Amino acid sequence: MEKILASWESLSASSGVLRFLDINLRGIGQVMFQNNPLSGALFLVAIAWGSYAAGAPRVAIAGVVAVVMSNLTAQWLRVDSESLHSGLYGFNGILVGLALATFLAPGPLLWVYVILGAAVSVVVMLATTNVVKPWGGALTFPFVLITWLLLLATYGFSGLAGTALPSGAVVTAFQPYKASPLQLIDLVQGVFLSISQVFLKASGIASLFLLAGLAVSSLAAATFALGGAILAVLTAHLLGAESDLITGGLLGFSPVLTAIALGTVFYQPSWRVVAYAALATVFTVITQAALNVALTPFAIPALTAPFVLVTWLFLLPQQRLVEIAPVANDLEEPVAGG
Amino acid sequence: MEKILASWESLSASSGVLRFLDINLRGIGQVMFQNNPLSGALFLVAIAWGSYAAGAPRVAIAGVVAVVMSNLTAQWLRVDSESLHSGLYGFNGILVGLALATFLAPGPLLWVYVILGAAVSVVVMLATTNVVKPWGGALTFPFVLITWLLLLATYGFSGLAGTALPSGAVVTAFQPYKASPLQLIDLVQGVFLSISQVFLKASGIASLFLLAGLAVSSLAAATFALGGAILAVLTAHLLGAESDLITGGLLGFSPVLTAIALGTVFYQPSWRVVAYAALATVFTVITQAALNVALTPFAIPALTAPFVLVTWLFLLPQQRLVEIAPVANDLEEPVAGG
Amino acid sequence: MEKILASWESLSASSGVLRFLDINLRGIGQVMFQNNPLSGALFLVAIAWGSYAAGAPRVAIAGVVAVVMSNLTAQWLRVDSESLHSGLYGFNGILVGLALATFLAPGPLLWVYVILGAAVSVVVMLATTNVVKPWGGALTFPFVLITWLLLLATYGFSGLAGTALPSGAVVTAFQPYKASPLQLIDLVQGVFLSISQVFLKASGIASLFLLAGLAVSSLAAATFALGGAILAVLTAHLLGAESDLITGGLLGFSPVLTAIALGTVFYQPSWRVVAYAALATVFTVITQAALNVALTPFAIPALTAPFVLVTWLFLLPQQRLVEIAPVANDLEEPVAGG
Repeated sequence: MEKILASWESLSASSGVLRFLDINLRGIGQVMFQNNPLSGALFLVAIAWGSYAAGAPRVAIAGVVAVVMSNLTAQWLRVDSESLHSGLYGFNGILVGLALATFLAPGPLLWVYVILGAAVSVVVMLATTNVVKPWGGALTFPFVLITWLLLLATYGFSGLAGTALPSGAVVTAFQPYKASPLQLIDLVQGVFLSISQVFLKASGIASLFLLAGLAVSSLAAATFALGGAILAVLTAHLLGAESDLITGGLLGFSPVLTAIALGTVFYQPSWRVVAYAALATVFTVITQAALNVALTPFAIPALTAPFVLVTWLFLLPQQRLVEIAPVANDLEEPVAGG
Repeated sequence: MEKILASWESLSASSGVLRFLDINLRGIGQVMFQNNPLSGALFLVAIAWGSYAAGAPRVAIAGVVAVVMSNLTAQWLRVDSESLHSGLYGFNGILVGLALATFLAPGPLLWVYVILGAAVSVVVMLATTNVVKPWGGALTFPFVLITWLLLLATYGFSGLAGTALPSGAVVTAFQPYKASPLQLIDLVQGVFLSISQVFLKASGIASLFLLAGLAVSSLAAATFALGGAILAVLTAHLLGAESDLITGGLLGFSPVLTAIALGTVFYQPSWRVVAYAALATVFTVITQAALNVALTPFAIPALTAPFVLVTWLFLLPQQRLVEIAPVANDLEEPVAGG
Repeated sequence: MEKILASWESLSASSGVLRFLDINLRGIGQVMFQNNPLSGALFLVAIAWGSYAAGAPRVAIAGVVAVVMSNLTAQWLRVDSESLHSGLYGFNGILVGLALATFLAPGPLLWVYVILGAAVSVVVMLATTNVVKPWGGALTFPFVLITWLLLLATYGFSGLAGTALPSGAVVTAFQPYKASPLQLIDLVQGVFLSISQVFLKASGIASLFLLAGLAVSSLAAATFALGGAILAVLTAHLLGAESDLITGGLLGFSPVLTAIALGTVFYQPSWRVVAYAALATVFTVITQAALNVALTPFAIPALTAPFVLVTWLFLLPQQRLVEIAPVANDLEEPVAGG
């Protein structure tokens, strides 16, 4: 594996075209924190399969167009090449493209939206990074903010129509889902779709490709992704969440990202960190349910906002905002008080 | 008084159990900025009485469970012991516990919620403190954020039911309350309940215990609390707020906290500071009404968000975000412009 | 022109009254970033004409009362005199006054609101400036925040009534405006009203005075204002926005401010900057539509929030939050990555 990646690296160093391909693959990999072109390639297969299986190949195309547009914009803005080559300016772009093509009706203006959203995602990535650098990364905040604005605006534009958006309503008490109680198989489905929903896909096969993409880069990441999905599904079930949301993975994709981020990216693994990441994962499930409710009057989806909010809250204790030091990688050091 | 506290301090230094009791009492006292175990004890009596009088002793129990859980979590996270011993990791926890038990139906999951919310309140306290340290404290922001998320989520969980939550609605023009105009006695009631509502209680006796708890620690704090409550009730009445909200103290508890914070905690008293605090207190009443309206579509209460927002806005002028200096204690120094 | 301003400056230096007049005129000019008393005077003529033409002279009076109250408050708070003399503590105040008198019914409490809002606008200006100084200015955030709170609160106060506020509703799909398609003349009207709506006016004559006020101070500012308005109207039309919003200038006033800010104030003009400002201007139109939708359940207008949000997002890439250096004035320097 190392050998393959090394030779690929030297190969892409030799060609501008391959380098750009490498950047875009890493950008796709960074959606799940993997600075690894092979992960990105496997994630892309998962996206392609999921889109094809859902009868909407345009979704995968929109994702590819968006990640390419993001990286072209990043080059135009002369970002630092290390971050560029790590794919950090592409992962929000592809998510914007996937989300817009998933929630909106096809048409020429959809593609204008995809290109515009991808370009602006780079600006918001730079903006967010400058604000949160002291304690962590921008995560998928640029994707969430831009997609929310673009989707909200469609309610004011006749040229763009939301075909898969929720309908607006004021908040009312939850009517428990009475039908057939969940079987183990339903929960297993929920676990796998929680992983594929990170890319807005409801496909078990896609989730296998995603787990493979994680494993080739980091076994720990694959483990925390799967563990986070299991913990999320059990938590949602225990609290009495709607069955369709559980089995569809719609309460689990944010917790999966929280688990990977806190468990493998920003902290060195340890039992304290596992417990800390587990607490954050459980709270992400609750935050997902909360934001689903809070966004009801606006008729837009929560996307990965719960992951961003909770992960930032659980990263901040390690840093003072006025320091520029790299994020601490354990929980041992004394933490600042009130 | 000093003598008693001194001997109590030496006593608690001698025993881990008494020290932990001391920490939890100070945590209760910190809800109103008093790092004083006797204040905390009197506040606890007020909470217990208010809960008992309301026929809901479980509310007081939930508060105690939450403050204990918060301080245990803080120790597990190895926070700095000075802040821990000052009770800074307990005051958000007890408020989370009181609020959850006040707004939600009893049941096993309520206690899961209380324990989880109390634990996360410490993480959010650390996170918020790191962000706002340059100009002030986290105040009750962790309580507000966590309680909002936990309450919103109940609309998506059949295992938890809000029994005392407002019902969702879009914003519409206010229908003035036509019935019997307010008498002086109504306004007096509003003043006292504004103080007890800081702990989500509608009890005049509880407010007397709270004022006593403030007085034993700081006469200035008790004075600003009472003055803030009077100013809030008069402002709300002048602007034509709904009588039930005024007499129930529901427009006054945030202003009470603003008055104590700006008048006695973060600035040295002076006539300029009194005027500044009064302006902030009046604006907190308006912000309370505004957030009550803004949260209507979400069917959740504003809690102490108005106090947090206005107090932060009125503290920020004294500080540049990039400094770590202690908060300035007067309004004399030149302030940074645009 | 220079001569006139120079002699005016020496004149106002000689008299406290003239200096205060100068400060207030500059405050009005700063709404469009012009630290120039002549610009302010011409803007004031535009406001007066627009208010008179709309049959609501009280609106102009409220604006004047508010800007004076803001600057008196700033002096009481002992702000640094350079910012004070540049009018930086007045531009949010006048907007608060204009907005409150535009949206609320006349009456004694309206004037209490205007004076209170103007006073608090200085506090929020100082607060916001301390937070955003590392990458830019407070812009009109204080105006937006305070006006939102004051307007929301009117739904809870019988003493204040919104006469020109939108009515609350949950978000629903947009019903395309079927009637007569837009003619060129409609678009031209939309362009000019986009400029006058910066001061909440729908008057072509007012917009001519505003353009004149910009031109006497900065031809570039006038050019970017007009260019921004044209780009905004075309973008809104292309995306299928409601005709009334386009021709009324209600989707263009925020983009106009974005274009001036990014094109002439914070960056040195260059083709890269023009392209960057154009991207921001287009995205401001979408953000305006998005916030119009997002605020529907709250029954309040978006005001200039889209300008503030997008301009901050497009300024942040140039700065790290922990630096105090003046905002960079080109896009050439390498930008920090994730």
